Amino acid sequence: MTLRLIYASPTHSADLFYWGRIFTSDCFLAFEVEGQRYAIGNHLEIDELRRHSRFDRILLPEDLSPDRHPGTADLIQRICEKFPNHELLLPRDFPAYLVLELQGRGIQFSIADGEFLPERSLKFPEELIQIRRACSIIGHAFEAVCSILENSKIIDGFLHGDNGILTSEFLRSEIERICFSEGAIARETIVSCGADAAFPHNRGKGKLKANEFIVVDIFPRLVESGYYGDMTRTFLRGEPSKQQREMYDAVEAVQRWAIGEICAGKDGKDIHEGSVAMFKEMGYDTTHSTGFFHATGHGVGLDLHENPFIGERSHRLRSGEVITVEPGLYYPDRGGVRLEDVLLVREDGAEYLSNFSYDWVL
Amino acid sequence: MTLRLIYASPTHSADLFYWGRIFTSDCFLAFEVEGQRYAIGNHLEIDELRRHSRFDRILLPEDLSPDRHPGTADLIQRICEKFPNHELLLPRDFPAYLVLELQGRGIQFSIADGEFLPERSLKFPEELIQIRRACSIIGHAFEAVCSILENSKIIDGFLHGDNGILTSEFLRSEIERICFSEGAIARETIVSCGADAAFPHNRGKGKLKANEFIVVDIFPRLVESGYYGDMTRTFLRGEPSKQQREMYDAVEAVQRWAIGEICAGKDGKDIHEGSVAMFKEMGYDTTHSTGFFHATGHGVGLDLHENPFIGERSHRLRSGEVITVEPGLYYPDRGGVRLEDVLLVREDGAEYLSNFSYDWVL
Repeated sequence: MTLRLIYASPTHSADLFYWGRIFTSDCFLAFEVEGQRYAIGNHLEIDELRRHSRFDRILLPEDLSPDRHPGTADLIQRICEKFPNHELLLPRDFPAYLVLELQGRGIQFSIADGEFLPERSLKFPEELIQIRRACSIIGHAFEAVCSILENSKIIDGFLHGDNGILTSEFLRSEIERICFSEGAIARETIVSCGADAAFPHNRGKGKLKANEFIVVDIFPRLVESGYYGDMTRTFLRGEPSKQQREMYDAVEAVQRWAIGEICAGKDGKDIHEGSVAMFKEMGYDTTHSTGFFHATGHGVGLDLHENPFIGERSHRLRSGEVITVEPGLYYPDRGGVRLEDVLLVREDGAEYLSNFSYDWVL
Repeated sequence: MTLRLIYASPTHSADLFYWGRIFTSDCFLAFEVEGQRYAIGNHLEIDELRRHSRFDRILLPEDLSPDRHPGTADLIQRICEKFPNHELLLPRDFPAYLVLELQGRGIQFSIADGEFLPERSLKFPEELIQIRRACSIIGHAFEAVCSILENSKIIDGFLHGDNGILTSEFLRSEIERICFSEGAIARETIVSCGADAAFPHNRGKGKLKANEFIVVDIFPRLVESGYYGDMTRTFLRGEPSKQQREMYDAVEAVQRWAIGEICAGKDGKDIHEGSVAMFKEMGYDTTHSTGFFHATGHGVGLDLHENPFIGERSHRLRSGEVITVEPGLYYPDRGGVRLEDVLLVREDGAEYLSNFSYDWVL
């Protein structure tokens, strides 16, 4: 039998939040054993944990140890003594100093090889509602982006709005304002234009240009429930070249194909390799820094990037998993295109949890 | 000579953000050796790191290892080989799985005993500007809170605003909206009234009552620079009882005394013990869950709670440290009072970085 134990703050550990459904900024100890989830809170936190968390039992340090201020390793030792014949399992990001203290005390433990809470990958209906809600907020932000771009004037190759030249920073702040007003916090939102967009994680800076790709990648987290949405669209204000049209069409075709492949039992690696092959066939690079060079998708939930990953490693999709599909193409001289949606894996195919138009020439 | 190394995401690790001054959601490896700070970014991050971070050198994994996809432990081993005769120092929250991998490879390391970057405690002038700015945003939120409370009507013992009965949730959302509009994200904001306020970390829920303490604790983080502000005020709408006046006056007197004690060379433990003694003398409890039972203050900067802590452990204050002073009193039958300000330690005393009135009867 396993005793799974976490020492973290739920603001940083999605695993801990998954257990307790409560955010606190300070770290506390929690564990799960014999189907019961325990939290150990100090006198500052205990009331909040008792009233608002979903832990089955909430203890004070003194319930476990006679010391006035028992250390965390001491508490862990006492927990292990209380539940002998259980294997202590810790998450990969368990703090190093506690690892050394446990070793010093001769406490046996193992570190989770992959996921600490593999059950997190299979989403409950209530979780799907939250992810869908986060994606619908992104949709509202995209609507605002489209409206600003459509109404912009092109002057000397740059886009001008009502209050002057449009910038990545302005669009980002509009997007993040909309997300906030709907109960989600968006950070590091990408609005990258031209050469900036050739680097997938470049957030973008400065003036927006006509006739260039503008990659907009928005991934807000719902303040109350903690779930993320994650969508990308690529827009172009003005007139695309033949090369740009081909690039966009290639990404859209690969995305549509990859989404069409999704169903329970399918290996994500095959979907990723198929996407790479399609880009290659169409004449695009798939080296390590130009063309298509990132994974095809990732799980999304209480973490922005979580299991399963749709990339070079084999993973057989299961009904109930939620993944993004986000092929892209990136060239320093042409900029970038990426399209990203969130999909629920079902027995017979994929169901969209995200929904926004693919119209891109504005 | 020491080689300090971090593997984390700057969104979770203030130490890593302190080095690079860039937020990314994914983890990466960074180290400091011989006065130079290095980051190792993959092809997704590298451009963003090169353009916008403050690292001295930014490397790709292949600059260190001939493997196509070297593991993190492999990269760390190669870094150690590149800088022999250096002691590898890791932060306390370094991930457990990497600790075991380093041990398996026979790589010698130590875990920072206290702070990993002790230099973070002494703030630069630019950091003080940011902390002051975060506190001034809190001041604006307090102004809004006061105005809402002052303009509220008392009906059947509850506070009513323009749109109905006032709640903790409504005030919290107003506060967080104001912070966001000024470039800061406030989470877990405390607006606790009556019995809720008897627990320091109770966020508060439900209707606000007249003639009861309302503890408002706001700690937003500036989106761009990452610095926190942290202030608490306690209000009461209506008419305080003699007991309430005494309780408020006691907290205010202790806070004023403690702030007056601050100067370089002073031991924080003495300030804390002096605060406890003052409360005791005035007849208040200082047990582990009623009266005054938390630390007197904590450092604030890129982390909300960081070194130095003004509590039971000895710490000699140094000029340039930034700390909160936040005495409080908590009784289940009376609610709670807490006052918190942010102070810069100077040679000859404390300088307020936060500024808001102590008028509390509205």
